[in-house]
Amino acid sequence: MQENGRDEWRRHMALRVGVIGGGQLARMMIAPAVELGLEIRVLAEAEGMSAQLAASAVGDYRDLETVRAFVADVDVVTFDHEHVPQDILRALVDEGVSVHPGPDALQFAQDKLVMRARLAELGVPQPEWAAVHSTGELQAFLDAHDGRAVVKTPRGGYDGKGVRVVRAVAEVQDWFDALPDGDALLVEELVPFVRELAQQVARRPSGQMVAYPVVETVQRDGVCAEVIAPAPRAAERLVEVAEEIGTSIAEGLGVTGMLAVELFETDDERILVNELAMRPHNSGHWSQDGAVTGQFEQHLRAVADLPLGSAAPRAPWSVMVNILGGPAEGTLGERFDAAMEAHPDAKIHTYGKDPRPGRKVGHVNVAGDELDDVVYVARAAAAHFD
Amino acid sequence: MQENGRDEWRRHMALRVGVIGGGQLARMMIAPAVELGLEIRVLAEAEGMSAQLAASAVGDYRDLETVRAFVADVDVVTFDHEHVPQDILRALVDEGVSVHPGPDALQFAQDKLVMRARLAELGVPQPEWAAVHSTGELQAFLDAHDGRAVVKTPRGGYDGKGVRVVRAVAEVQDWFDALPDGDALLVEELVPFVRELAQQVARRPSGQMVAYPVVETVQRDGVCAEVIAPAPRAAERLVEVAEEIGTSIAEGLGVTGMLAVELFETDDERILVNELAMRPHNSGHWSQDGAVTGQFEQHLRAVADLPLGSAAPRAPWSVMVNILGGPAEGTLGERFDAAMEAHPDAKIHTYGKDPRPGRKVGHVNVAGDELDDVVYVARAAAAHFD
Repeated sequence: MQENGRDEWRRHMALRVGVIGGGQLARMMIAPAVELGLEIRVLAEAEGMSAQLAASAVGDYRDLETVRAFVADVDVVTFDHEHVPQDILRALVDEGVSVHPGPDALQFAQDKLVMRARLAELGVPQPEWAAVHSTGELQAFLDAHDGRAVVKTPRGGYDGKGVRVVRAVAEVQDWFDALPDGDALLVEELVPFVRELAQQVARRPSGQMVAYPVVETVQRDGVCAEVIAPAPRAAERLVEVAEEIGTSIAEGLGVTGMLAVELFETDDERILVNELAMRPHNSGHWSQDGAVTGQFEQHLRAVADLPLGSAAPRAPWSVMVNILGGPAEGTLGERFDAAMEAHPDAKIHTYGKDPRPGRKVGHVNVAGDELDDVVYVARAAAAHFD
Repeated sequence: MQENGRDEWRRHMALRVGVIGGGQLARMMIAPAVELGLEIRVLAEAEGMSAQLAASAVGDYRDLETVRAFVADVDVVTFDHEHVPQDILRALVDEGVSVHPGPDALQFAQDKLVMRARLAELGVPQPEWAAVHSTGELQAFLDAHDGRAVVKTPRGGYDGKGVRVVRAVAEVQDWFDALPDGDALLVEELVPFVRELAQQVARRPSGQMVAYPVVETVQRDGVCAEVIAPAPRAAERLVEVAEEIGTSIAEGLGVTGMLAVELFETDDERILVNELAMRPHNSGHWSQDGAVTGQFEQHLRAVADLPLGSAAPRAPWSVMVNILGGPAEGTLGERFDAAMEAHPDAKIHTYGKDPRPGRKVGHVNVAGDELDDVVYVARAAAAHFD
């Protein structure tokens, strides 16, 4: 009876979730996994990574045998990042492993050209774009777009890496030189945006979806610096369109888990899709303290095919400010102490990473009734780490 | 420079907190420890305990060598329970280990006679009580209190165990028979209470204190069943008195970490101290989702001597309902699934324990604007597990 009880409990409640990648996104899944009663195991790239506490294995996610050994002990596989190669993902699926998001969805997050083509098929609004195989093709695109464009390497970019705003083909000559025969770069129009937004949607394998309120994201040097949830001054129509874009993409691409859609709001009131991420995303960190169900809990519920939680805000306003790099003087610990002392309302989340200029080492969440106050406290708390 | 950065980070931010005891209270410290950047290590009583994920050692907390080996690797020691013997606690302190709460405070949580005597010295309102060494002394107390009283074993009781309401000395004859020479039982008047309340206070070694709003607790069969935060219909005066009692005790007993004071509200509007706990407490589980700083985070901040967080509620009302035992039919997993499906606003926390009748295996927290709605949803979600 005891053993039977344990088995039954295990059958659903101690479902083992394996996370490939040991960064801060895996780390932030630990807290909700514990509360939900999910066993979390992490395949970390190295010892001492952010998600160390749950690291049950250390190894290279590009090595099939390493990944295969890791997944042997788990019921569901998910990810800290989108970099696991397609051949490995497909081998796992062929062997009957439950992988969420699966390779068919992840290909769209792994290759921006494949993503653009698919979004075009779905009729989702996006910037004008082209696949350019040569400097000649890029020049033609520039000529058709006032001599300016954004060029992106289709694979491997993040936080502004692999993205260049160009006025001349020479500015990406090195990328063309390194391009294998037949491959292309992605070129997009430089969108005249007034601000950037992000829409998150959670989707279960069974199809249930929950949409978060659209948020405003503020980037600095290509890196997310600040998020305001929900997006201020957002007309009802904008909120609806953003949600519709998010759910169309989640459904159309067969996403399971959290989807983040980065959006441009243009000066002529259009919303265009910039980038996608199929995992918890920096634009959703506010939800840890600001929504009924935080994005890390929601991701786990979605990939484990458990009923999704409410994505409703817990306060009228939430603001997230990233903590980048390390202090110019003093220790991070002293700054942390000072920030906590001065701001008892601020929730400071740390990633357990060595500080390094420009590196995200944590973030601050603040929620409250008055946007001005919330923004002030979040910025002031984060400023202790400048 | 890298190594230096890591050392500096570690010096404050990756402070290692050792928790003695692997139950659900230790388990629920894991989530905030990860977010705060504290390394949490647990000395569990056995394999497969609630706090398994952070269990770095398994052994008997009554064995000095076991405890000494465990604490060698941590910066601060705290507890899942109050049962670590005084001689072990004092040996650690003598060896320079940072123990919070320390033995001088914990003695009052370990022995209810010592606690009653100290609260009397502090002038804290409490039921009439006496140390009774014999049936004769108990009979005298009964004679002076309408022939009814509550008899308690001073040590080792919890969740109603070691507590009997008696009308005749014969009802605790077995306790007197087992009593070592010179020892006494605790007898207290049967308080005519209208309801039970609980007051929590966090206190740092440096003396900083933060008080939570007083809550109403509903017991069934001597076990906490439901908590409403803040206590409904609580006059301002009652809130102030409860807070004053809590902070007086925290200061007077030198508590570090979380203190819970269980209170009786009498029909003549007095508040009397029932029991104390020097750790996170069932009456404070609501704060995980209902307060800016949950009690598990606050306990870690307090014992690590970090600035305390705000104890303000995040919503007008929060309700916690315990999940006891296991379902009569179906699996716990099916119940869990059904509860999540029906109540996307409910936060269900699980302890990773085998279900057993009457055993606490989890709890549900719900927060919101209308008390009736919040109570309804919390009870309805928990009812899936009946």
